Amino acid sequence: MNWAIIMAGGSGTRFWPESRKSRPKQFLSLFGRQTLLEQTFYRLRRFIPRDRILVFVSESKVALTRQLLKIPAGQVIGEPVGRNTAPCALWAASYVMRKDPSAVLGIFPADHYIRDEKAFTKTMRLSYGIAGQKGMPVTLGICPDFPHTGYGYLEMGRRLAPGVFYLKQFREKPDLPSAKKYLKSKRFLWNAGIFIWRADCLLEAGRQYLPDVFKITTAIAGEGCSRTSVKKLFSKCPAISIDYGLMEKMTGQILTVPVSMGWNDVGGWASLKKLLARRSDDNVSQGKTLLVESSGNFVRSQTKLIATVGLQDHVVIETSDAILVCPTKKTEEIRKIVSALETAGMGQFL
Amino acid sequence: MNWAIIMAGGSGTRFWPESRKSRPKQFLSLFGRQTLLEQTFYRLRRFIPRDRILVFVSESKVALTRQLLKIPAGQVIGEPVGRNTAPCALWAASYVMRKDPSAVLGIFPADHYIRDEKAFTKTMRLSYGIAGQKGMPVTLGICPDFPHTGYGYLEMGRRLAPGVFYLKQFREKPDLPSAKKYLKSKRFLWNAGIFIWRADCLLEAGRQYLPDVFKITTAIAGEGCSRTSVKKLFSKCPAISIDYGLMEKMTGQILTVPVSMGWNDVGGWASLKKLLARRSDDNVSQGKTLLVESSGNFVRSQTKLIATVGLQDHVVIETSDAILVCPTKKTEEIRKIVSALETAGMGQFL
Repeated sequence: MNWAIIMAGGSGTRFWPESRKSRPKQFLSLFGRQTLLEQTFYRLRRFIPRDRILVFVSESKVALTRQLLKIPAGQVIGEPVGRNTAPCALWAASYVMRKDPSAVLGIFPADHYIRDEKAFTKTMRLSYGIAGQKGMPVTLGICPDFPHTGYGYLEMGRRLAPGVFYLKQFREKPDLPSAKKYLKSKRFLWNAGIFIWRADCLLEAGRQYLPDVFKITTAIAGEGCSRTSVKKLFSKCPAISIDYGLMEKMTGQILTVPVSMGWNDVGGWASLKKLLARRSDDNVSQGKTLLVESSGNFVRSQTKLIATVGLQDHVVIETSDAILVCPTKKTEEIRKIVSALETAGMGQFL
Repeated sequence: MNWAIIMAGGSGTRFWPESRKSRPKQFLSLFGRQTLLEQTFYRLRRFIPRDRILVFVSESKVALTRQLLKIPAGQVIGEPVGRNTAPCALWAASYVMRKDPSAVLGIFPADHYIRDEKAFTKTMRLSYGIAGQKGMPVTLGICPDFPHTGYGYLEMGRRLAPGVFYLKQFREKPDLPSAKKYLKSKRFLWNAGIFIWRADCLLEAGRQYLPDVFKITTAIAGEGCSRTSVKKLFSKCPAISIDYGLMEKMTGQILTVPVSMGWNDVGGWASLKKLLARRSDDNVSQGKTLLVESSGNFVRSQTKLIATVGLQDHVVIETSDAILVCPTKKTEEIRKIVSALETAGMGQFL
């Protein structure tokens, strides 16, 4: 049967001051009223029954997650520490295998944006089908629409079936000339970090390429493993991603399914602004704002009136206790504010 | 005897969102804890006894003014409407004349900054003395230290006594080349809007040059003029300044006393920032702020943390209900925000 694993354990600082330790990105409502996690969950509900969706979150977020998604305790799994995606995927695979030995798992980040949910659903049906049939991992590949230098790329190889290709190789984030060449060639896709994989094959890959992780996650997922043991064992896991830990060792045995579905990883305020603006010089404003002779700004008010005059290409974000002001081009540097807050002992803002 | 008249009736939008209809600039604490009005009052207290300082404010601010300055009702005079400085000066002169026919009046704006209070006091003693002796109005002239194009200038004529000159003529706000010439010549001074004038001579000038205003203000200052009559009469006064209504008609009969005392009219956020910064690219911050890789900004927080990264030359002001963000160069345009608030019916922010 088809299962979905939502990986919602991430922390991150790129949406400070909205994102905090207690409320990382996937718990923010950036588009509309639902959090990104809820949007991910309901997007999967279009083709996976709710009792076959598991959510991995950091332990402190289990209660919040259950409250948001209204799902039973058994479907929300608390990670005692963050260990990147490979340990989480193997844990999930062991856990699901006990209930359903023929399970096909889709592994999904909790905090992405997908505009065209119909295209997503269609591609998922194809991917689950081919992954179940062939026993090979399927990575979702996003057809690029501009030469992005911030994503990893997938190079397509020969065609296996309509809409399904072998993956020739993974490519690191390219420089701009390479990204332009990639775009032109039409043989390169963005790596969205979405994988479909039969649980038995995923476990076999784990046993072979990450034996230490495999041993630990098998033990953790076994019946009767106490919370204390889980914590002790999982802490010993190396932190490693599915891409580096498993996929890159399997070149030639991986499939990719290209799709155009208005995907975006929503990497920070600047990309959120781009997603929401009709034109790049449009202002995007949320809440009580007054923008006079201003353009290209992203202004988000929670309580107070934010008024600007002559302001160009800035991000202004107000939350209940903090205000961020920075040029749109500098939103990558927000982590420096977070570091400075740590250094200054201003932990209440983290 | 020497008297001081503080003209505190102004409104104004240049310090929005701090300045509101209910709290114009002179009631703001821009330097330290005291309001500009209090600072003006205590600066005058260095050489004028407190019972000879009168404050003219708009009627709605009488209670607030008495509370701030802790002076008797008789010394705080409420103007039913704003009519610029000449009607106010003539009203004050009539009022004081009844108590002290030999009075010399100093007329002071309530909202300026003076760094060197000793130089101010010394110049005032000289000015009151010469005004009392000669019966001619004395205007204070600030020795310019850069070619400012935003002030009116006083051109000095021949010397009357040490530190005292005839005023040759008033000059409108100059363009930059003229301002540079003025600075170089050392014969031009900034008009600070501070006048010292014997009450009897001021009234005589009023009778001659502004007979309508003179009639009204004499009636208003007369004993037994009811609040209702004051309101009715004063509303009929034309709005006209001391400079245009009286001084410019008296060329050749005016004196000026030059002084360097770190004077500034604090025209808006940008000039306040300049006053507070050691270097032009310094940040100036007040309240809870965190400025990372940012320079030349003026950031003022009242309740929330304001954090910036990569921000250059902007003004960020937070008050209890509003936040202003604009480039320092655009602070002159803040009135456009105020107009837009009016148009949008957002009166609670005015």
